[in-house]
Amino acid sequence: MTGMMTNRELMLTLGRAGREAAKVLALAPTRQKNDALMAMAAKIRRSAGDILSENARDLENAKAKDMKASFVDRLTLNEARLEAMAKGLEEIAALPDPVGQVMAQWTRPNGLAFSRVRVPIGVIGIIFESRPNVTADAGGLCLKSGNAAILRGGSDSFHSSGAIIACLQRGLDTAGLPRTAIQMVPNADRDCVGLMLEGLGGTLDLIVPRGGKSLVARVQADARIPVFSHLEGICHVYVDKAADLEMAKRVVLNAKMRRTGVCGSAETVLIDRAAAEKNLKPIIATLIDAGCEVRGDKAAQEADPRVKPATQEDWSTEYLDAIISMKLVDGVDEAMAHIAHHGSQHTDSIITEDASTAERFLAQVDSAIVLHNASTQFADGGEFGFGAEIGIATGKLHARGPVGVEQLTTFKYQVRGSGQTRP
Amino acid sequence: MTGMMTNRELMLTLGRAGREAAKVLALAPTRQKNDALMAMAAKIRRSAGDILSENARDLENAKAKDMKASFVDRLTLNEARLEAMAKGLEEIAALPDPVGQVMAQWTRPNGLAFSRVRVPIGVIGIIFESRPNVTADAGGLCLKSGNAAILRGGSDSFHSSGAIIACLQRGLDTAGLPRTAIQMVPNADRDCVGLMLEGLGGTLDLIVPRGGKSLVARVQADARIPVFSHLEGICHVYVDKAADLEMAKRVVLNAKMRRTGVCGSAETVLIDRAAAEKNLKPIIATLIDAGCEVRGDKAAQEADPRVKPATQEDWSTEYLDAIISMKLVDGVDEAMAHIAHHGSQHTDSIITEDASTAERFLAQVDSAIVLHNASTQFADGGEFGFGAEIGIATGKLHARGPVGVEQLTTFKYQVRGSGQTRP
Repeated sequence: MTGMMTNRELMLTLGRAGREAAKVLALAPTRQKNDALMAMAAKIRRSAGDILSENARDLENAKAKDMKASFVDRLTLNEARLEAMAKGLEEIAALPDPVGQVMAQWTRPNGLAFSRVRVPIGVIGIIFESRPNVTADAGGLCLKSGNAAILRGGSDSFHSSGAIIACLQRGLDTAGLPRTAIQMVPNADRDCVGLMLEGLGGTLDLIVPRGGKSLVARVQADARIPVFSHLEGICHVYVDKAADLEMAKRVVLNAKMRRTGVCGSAETVLIDRAAAEKNLKPIIATLIDAGCEVRGDKAAQEADPRVKPATQEDWSTEYLDAIISMKLVDGVDEAMAHIAHHGSQHTDSIITEDASTAERFLAQVDSAIVLHNASTQFADGGEFGFGAEIGIATGKLHARGPVGVEQLTTFKYQVRGSGQTRP
Repeated sequence: MTGMMTNRELMLTLGRAGREAAKVLALAPTRQKNDALMAMAAKIRRSAGDILSENARDLENAKAKDMKASFVDRLTLNEARLEAMAKGLEEIAALPDPVGQVMAQWTRPNGLAFSRVRVPIGVIGIIFESRPNVTADAGGLCLKSGNAAILRGGSDSFHSSGAIIACLQRGLDTAGLPRTAIQMVPNADRDCVGLMLEGLGGTLDLIVPRGGKSLVARVQADARIPVFSHLEGICHVYVDKAADLEMAKRVVLNAKMRRTGVCGSAETVLIDRAAAEKNLKPIIATLIDAGCEVRGDKAAQEADPRVKPATQEDWSTEYLDAIISMKLVDGVDEAMAHIAHHGSQHTDSIITEDASTAERFLAQVDSAIVLHNASTQFADGGEFGFGAEIGIATGKLHARGPVGVEQLTTFKYQVRGSGQTRP
């Protein structure tokens, strides 16, 4: 069908179709969008056999290519994962609809009535690696927020994503919405990604990359349109001299070890030198006893012989593994200077019973999320109460922190008058 | 002083100094920022002689180069314009401080207390043409919103801007704030602009261009960091069949002729064919009698012999002059289709007594500002009640519409806990 088209023509066609669909979605009532989401979930459940057999094709190829076990695991679908995908769509249906919400309203002395109203962004491109579940998540979140989606999944999940997209499009159909509201790039050619990063001739408003550091780095470097992303999460926990030791042990352990592969996982613990005598040993022991490797400065190495020496590189490394770096600092000021220098403006936490030190940390650390006496693993849209999220953004403009349906909207000003002219 | 530096080194030095200043500004109390703004205003008044003699040097150069009268006018300073500049700074001091405002607050079932708090964006680059007054405006707005500013003015206003910057920096000094909070690029080399568009090695967060279409187009095309701007304002007034004719005449006249050179000036009037008999002639006559050239479709030409024929190009032209294009459309749907095709997503207005038609227009037209029964010339931060503005943005992300002090901020999440860990 697209045999005669160049990839450029093909992608521009997708972009224009997305733009047309976005016009319909912007005005679609909440009920219709929710109907589509529920129909998608039902269709995924009914099509489990088809999806799993397409997934089997992808898995066969991956095994033939000798891919890593963790890669194959992310690629693998099964009944339980399909059920989670369907449930995810139902949960998105249950979220409040951000579109049309009045964010602010005021009247000027001349009688003009201003409203700042949430509207969809338009057409959103999602570029992701071979995780088929992102297909449903990203499509559902874009739909709920009134945006058209153009999805470009990893080439190794091509057949799985295609089968899932078919279900999503059937759901759109059922609810009377255009199938082009959620489109998938129909081949795995790499130049299609480049065309998306250029903005598809002005039809694409935003790119969201979902995947590892090399994917995000490429998108950030090459995109000519806005990107919501984080390159890495080098999250810190600072244990102040006024910390409660039991709380510090519990929070540090959770911040690192609850899940080590997520962006909100802590990578460095900074310990206030003024209370190192009391806090250093027990915190190291808590981590090592739980199976975490600790790489520390001299003080940490002296406190526990199991601590390995940290190199300069460790302070800027996102391990995404059961490894943590640790060092002493001279109070909250050196801690904040360390975070400013080595952090990724993602999520950082202070443990202290001293309210004024905590407030200084919350005010001064320039990260999307700053916490007092809580684990960095709360960096998650669900934990914020946003419902599902499409990722975490560390850029400063528009969306910062978890990106849920509300963050996928923009706004416009509606001004209602009675014939006012400007003097 | 900078004789041995390359422009790259020079600009990176400016960027790093801006970043350092931004840290101080982010925490500066409102009182201190206002003290600086008031001191700047006082210093400008006291230095009128110096500023005017520097301005005379710029004017001499401009005349030697045989610049256009309108260019020379924008470049010219006098006592009244300096007084307006000083007053502008005092007005910025009187605005509420957006930094630290709590935008939202909620508590989760686990007891974590979330706050979404306004914070400055960081370091903002302003690239502007030879209008010396932008120096004080932009510097003042950035300071009030807690941002460091790096200003690059037009080379023809180099001496005037330099004299104004000296006053601003003296004001910063007086209030105990770093002089590097507002810096000026100390030469007129063009490659310095390119370096700003690249982001000064990651130290610049945002670019705001202030000037004509060619400047904005270059910035939009080449910037690798976010830009708040509008390329042009092709603003429409749609006169619906249910319009009150007297109101339509008054609003159309104001929308075009109040000031023809501003971005909110109307460039096209769309008249509903269903009431053309009644509305077309009087609206044309109102405009032409006020000295406006009307370029119309066949119906408009037939209605009044003074109407000139419109070409296809007219529908996409920002005249910034006493010229307007006019055509008949088949109701609000064709009007909205015309606006979607030819508009600039800036500001568009509908004149109608039919509330449901008005609501459709307000909902569907995808522009930053949509008005009902009011002039497009209200597209202005002051008219919105934002106080001073740095410009109007037509991009969809972060800032849309007038960009005042609030729009020059971002936010972060502060999360206060009591030892919560994530299950």
